[in-house]
Amino acid sequence: MKQLNVGIIGAGRIGKVHARSIANYVRGAKIAAIADPFISDETAQWARESLGVERITKDHLDIINDKSIDAVLICSSTDTHAQISLEAIAAGKHVFCEKPIDHDIGRIKQVLEALRSSQVKYMVGFNRRFDHNFRALRAAVINGGIGKVEIVKVTSRDPEPPSAEYAARSGGIFLDMAIHDFDMVRYLSGDEVEEVYVSPGVLVDPAIGEAGDFDTAVISLKLKSGALAVIDNCRRCAYGYDQRAEVFGSLGAALCGNDTESNVQVWSDSGTAGKKPLFFFLERYMQAYATEVTEFIEAVVNDTPVPVNAQDGLAAVLIGIAATKSAKEGRPVRIEEIAS
Amino acid sequence: MKQLNVGIIGAGRIGKVHARSIANYVRGAKIAAIADPFISDETAQWARESLGVERITKDHLDIINDKSIDAVLICSSTDTHAQISLEAIAAGKHVFCEKPIDHDIGRIKQVLEALRSSQVKYMVGFNRRFDHNFRALRAAVINGGIGKVEIVKVTSRDPEPPSAEYAARSGGIFLDMAIHDFDMVRYLSGDEVEEVYVSPGVLVDPAIGEAGDFDTAVISLKLKSGALAVIDNCRRCAYGYDQRAEVFGSLGAALCGNDTESNVQVWSDSGTAGKKPLFFFLERYMQAYATEVTEFIEAVVNDTPVPVNAQDGLAAVLIGIAATKSAKEGRPVRIEEIAS
Amino acid sequence: MKQLNVGIIGAGRIGKVHARSIANYVRGAKIAAIADPFISDETAQWARESLGVERITKDHLDIINDKSIDAVLICSSTDTHAQISLEAIAAGKHVFCEKPIDHDIGRIKQVLEALRSSQVKYMVGFNRRFDHNFRALRAAVINGGIGKVEIVKVTSRDPEPPSAEYAARSGGIFLDMAIHDFDMVRYLSGDEVEEVYVSPGVLVDPAIGEAGDFDTAVISLKLKSGALAVIDNCRRCAYGYDQRAEVFGSLGAALCGNDTESNVQVWSDSGTAGKKPLFFFLERYMQAYATEVTEFIEAVVNDTPVPVNAQDGLAAVLIGIAATKSAKEGRPVRIEEIAS
Amino acid sequence: MKQLNVGIIGAGRIGKVHARSIANYVRGAKIAAIADPFISDETAQWARESLGVERITKDHLDIINDKSIDAVLICSSTDTHAQISLEAIAAGKHVFCEKPIDHDIGRIKQVLEALRSSQVKYMVGFNRRFDHNFRALRAAVINGGIGKVEIVKVTSRDPEPPSAEYAARSGGIFLDMAIHDFDMVRYLSGDEVEEVYVSPGVLVDPAIGEAGDFDTAVISLKLKSGALAVIDNCRRCAYGYDQRAEVFGSLGAALCGNDTESNVQVWSDSGTAGKKPLFFFLERYMQAYATEVTEFIEAVVNDTPVPVNAQDGLAAVLIGIAATKSAKEGRPVRIEEIAS
Repeated sequence: MKQLNVGIIGAGRIGKVHARSIANYVRGAKIAAIADPFISDETAQWARESLGVERITKDHLDIINDKSIDAVLICSSTDTHAQISLEAIAAGKHVFCEKPIDHDIGRIKQVLEALRSSQVKYMVGFNRRFDHNFRALRAAVINGGIGKVEIVKVTSRDPEPPSAEYAARSGGIFLDMAIHDFDMVRYLSGDEVEEVYVSPGVLVDPAIGEAGDFDTAVISLKLKSGALAVIDNCRRCAYGYDQRAEVFGSLGAALCGNDTESNVQVWSDSGTAGKKPLFFFLERYMQAYATEVTEFIEAVVNDTPVPVNAQDGLAAVLIGIAATKSAKEGRPVRIEEIAS
Repeated sequence: MKQLNVGIIGAGRIGKVHARSIANYVRGAKIAAIADPFISDETAQWARESLGVERITKDHLDIINDKSIDAVLICSSTDTHAQISLEAIAAGKHVFCEKPIDHDIGRIKQVLEALRSSQVKYMVGFNRRFDHNFRALRAAVINGGIGKVEIVKVTSRDPEPPSAEYAARSGGIFLDMAIHDFDMVRYLSGDEVEEVYVSPGVLVDPAIGEAGDFDTAVISLKLKSGALAVIDNCRRCAYGYDQRAEVFGSLGAALCGNDTESNVQVWSDSGTAGKKPLFFFLERYMQAYATEVTEFIEAVVNDTPVPVNAQDGLAAVLIGIAATKSAKEGRPVRIEEIAS
Repeated sequence: MKQLNVGIIGAGRIGKVHARSIANYVRGAKIAAIADPFISDETAQWARESLGVERITKDHLDIINDKSIDAVLICSSTDTHAQISLEAIAAGKHVFCEKPIDHDIGRIKQVLEALRSSQVKYMVGFNRRFDHNFRALRAAVINGGIGKVEIVKVTSRDPEPPSAEYAARSGGIFLDMAIHDFDMVRYLSGDEVEEVYVSPGVLVDPAIGEAGDFDTAVISLKLKSGALAVIDNCRRCAYGYDQRAEVFGSLGAALCGNDTESNVQVWSDSGTAGKKPLFFFLERYMQAYATEVTEFIEAVVNDTPVPVNAQDGLAAVLIGIAATKSAKEGRPVRIEEIAS
Repeated sequence: MKQLNVGIIGAGRIGKVHARSIANYVRGAKIAAIADPFISDETAQWARESLGVERITKDHLDIINDKSIDAVLICSSTDTHAQISLEAIAAGKHVFCEKPIDHDIGRIKQVLEALRSSQVKYMVGFNRRFDHNFRALRAAVINGGIGKVEIVKVTSRDPEPPSAEYAARSGGIFLDMAIHDFDMVRYLSGDEVEEVYVSPGVLVDPAIGEAGDFDTAVISLKLKSGALAVIDNCRRCAYGYDQRAEVFGSLGAALCGNDTESNVQVWSDSGTAGKKPLFFFLERYMQAYATEVTEFIEAVVNDTPVPVNAQDGLAAVLIGIAATKSAKEGRPVRIEEIAS
């Protein structure tokens, strides 16, 4: 099998996760280079010594222009995703782009436009689709005998709130956090969202509210088939990262819960006690990140469709923008209001 | 202890449940009479022989006018609740009234008005407040260390849909079915609902839609404290009566699930299998019904406040009417729109 | 339906449980009399006023000699069971006898002998066979697709140890406590025990050891079919009454666990917490006691076999005696050593 | 950090697992060579290309005599463990030896003797001690507030029986399969076994019985502290690899159950269904194997004690031999009978 040469653009938290996955788990790929204008000496050394990466650069164009590199992983800050995507597509490189492609619909459409006349693969990093629980849940929706999907429920709560500054910069809770849940509703139902209504709150940190964002929300969605969905989000969850989902259908329901470090229970005079959920996304989705990148590489190597494409990336952002509008205007917002 | 003389008005399904509870479990009360214009010979005989009821009548006024009767249970059809309540209050009898008091706010207010100048106890039959799981959940909200309530979630799905005719007559899914869940949100949170938004569906039976009602819904609620709530309802649930709730707070969450006939699991080549939830409300809430009536009797005998009063009855109907309006108009509806 | 007249002999804890069950739940029976030489005024008053029992006596022969009484419940101290059983059988009364019939095999055989030439029903009070969980477990063994039984496991731990004096008088842990578990192994497997080996301990209270008894044990059993069983007992369990069982078969396993007051869980920074098991036998087996007595009455009224007969009573005692011998002699003991 | 050079002796199933772990997860070590007289071309190619192993040899002495190699993993057949251990110790190499060291006590003692005058680390591969669930269970025994250990219960059932030939060669169920459970009892209790009584069965495959072995067993153990333990084993389990444990103490109990591929449940008219346990040891203990080898390497590199030493290896074999004797002679056997 041909060894795929991969360049990683952005060496922050998620860039490092993907680098480690490729080095440790992905047989068919090799990290040819990592580019990050702000890379620390420590990270550079780690990449060289532990991962065997030969080239570390500050300029991502070194990767874009390197003809020996087959594919890039865009792990830089969100506002650079679309631009780098366009550069990579133009250079004929396959692209794995962290979510979201952009917060601006127009720029996402530019990427889609560029892809239309290109042969490159373009995958968006909705990592939760690769989680063992959510995959098994989707499989149960398809094969588990629960019938036609009627209600999809997603609970998604972060252990710790971001700073108000981050919240403001992030595009807001709906584009930064709930966007994963919008994708999850689409993934689990196999359906499209048509309308969103948000019941928002600032219950965790008033500074988040002052920054124009929310930290808590219940989000109602209407799907094309007539099915309903609901997401509840909170930026702070005392018992860790709460990631559960349920799909209710005409013949039954399928549910999945949190993962824990172990399934040990202690029974004592004060009751029966178990472990709390794994702390946050790096713990809960560690394996999912590895699977995600593996499947991107496999799609490139085998020339098969990527499991999450640019249209999926667009759809989630559309819902996120509609949700933001709904939260601000206090009314249900149809996706077509945003899309057109 | 004085033996309380109780009259039961209405000998349908729920009237029989209460009659059986009083006869079997409530030491301080005696069923003096049962009134129902349509009572069958079989039911009359059962009441006489098994429950030891001496007087069976077709006219509820026989009970209202019987000075030896201290309290009445109004278990007749919904459209008679308010009228009989007024008669009973006027006759100085304590009243246990099945939910809802009425579908008409004006008539409920008449009952409230009558109570203002009366010493009688008036309790509304929100039986789920007396369920062991929901009680323990409420206790956990108060004492369980979960902090300030932020999100309340209620899942409530019936095993089998009613006929379209029943749906039409019933006041609709929000006044007939979700009304219990509105009360549950108020009970679990200890808070008041300010605004409702409904995302409704007709996914089970088109005839229900043709009758102007819905059979599926996701209901978002905003509470006075700023907390959020969400209810999901379906009139048909393949695995039985699904009655779960979750309260998420600043320091943790408390959850309760369904009850099953036994906790036996069978592990085999096809996986691990457990029992489904108890079939419907008579099974799940059997004990709750007995507790409910016992506590009504105790409140009368001990002259203490009833655990669910007429204001609670009004509040749930107001939310039900607002929900109905929201479903029809596709917008969030504030309770004060309805109440004033 | 004819009303069965029942006499209760012994008004201690278990006698009261049965009296209450018959008064509240059993339609076809009436408590004609209660006999107890040590009955308190308080208990006598409660029986008269709350249960409607007309006759309270100190002498059980008043019941035995009362021709209007059809059946007796023997709830007196163990050392009187066999004698009263013989008297009742001679008087032609159906008998429900609390476990064990006796600690002496010879006296149990006298009862069996008396039954041989009599038409009366004789039932032994192994209440756990009537528990919803163990019944469902037995049903799963029969119909649940687990195949041929290979290993039966019973966990049985009491919340609080008895006094050393009680332990000494009780016949020892194997005849007083484990006897229920011996019956459970027979019930769940549908098989007979052939050999017992006990690994005993005095880990809870040295005084129990000094009194010649044990407070902890692991008991291995060989069944006639070749299947194996194991029971673990402890007289003190910090989290309450631990009553679990598991049947492992050639095609799968069936398991049941403890019951709790509610299924509420609290999730917090310290983990996920649930309720502990119901405290002790009166809480856990409340419903089982009612079902047990109901089925005895039904077997009498309908002239059908009782669900637990005198042979079952004998079998459990034989195993208990063999277990006691094994614990003392440190070797496996075959039942036929005891039986012959 | 110095890179440790490791040689792997034996390239069967478990040798490959360790090779993969070292190549993928262990930063401080490098596989210098693999020796196996029967290594296939395919395995050799995989080791070279996927794991980057430079030297593949048929003769394990090539590894023993290679001065650049610091440590060896003995993954060859059981009958060679002791001999190769002695060679490796003599050559001054640290040793990780798969369990058991030998079936013969005399030969294990030779290894212990050789270690007495050597500075090498010697670790035995009881992989389950490195499983996340059993580790958390042991932590709960130490810190979880369950008090003094009184009863240890281990359930250990394999999904599929070995052939009768394998069973005969393997040393029998107690030395081949239960040996892990003997170690688990020692690990969880932190105590020593003094006496064993086995209740054995041939319930799965008569050919196993004809070969002089058993396929099912309940094993009672007495520990030095007076605590009791019980293990139940079966060579065939329809629902997969059943690996559970429970430690009951004076103040509570700690329990752990099986792991599953996902925690998805499907609720339908036939009940609530979950996933069965992970299939067998490679699935269940995948991570444990990696942790085990990592900790061996760390103990060598940091010159700290190995987590499972040769004495642990001896203790488990002694219990295995005592258990075999008990099963054959039908009586409890003390460890000192075997040890002396």
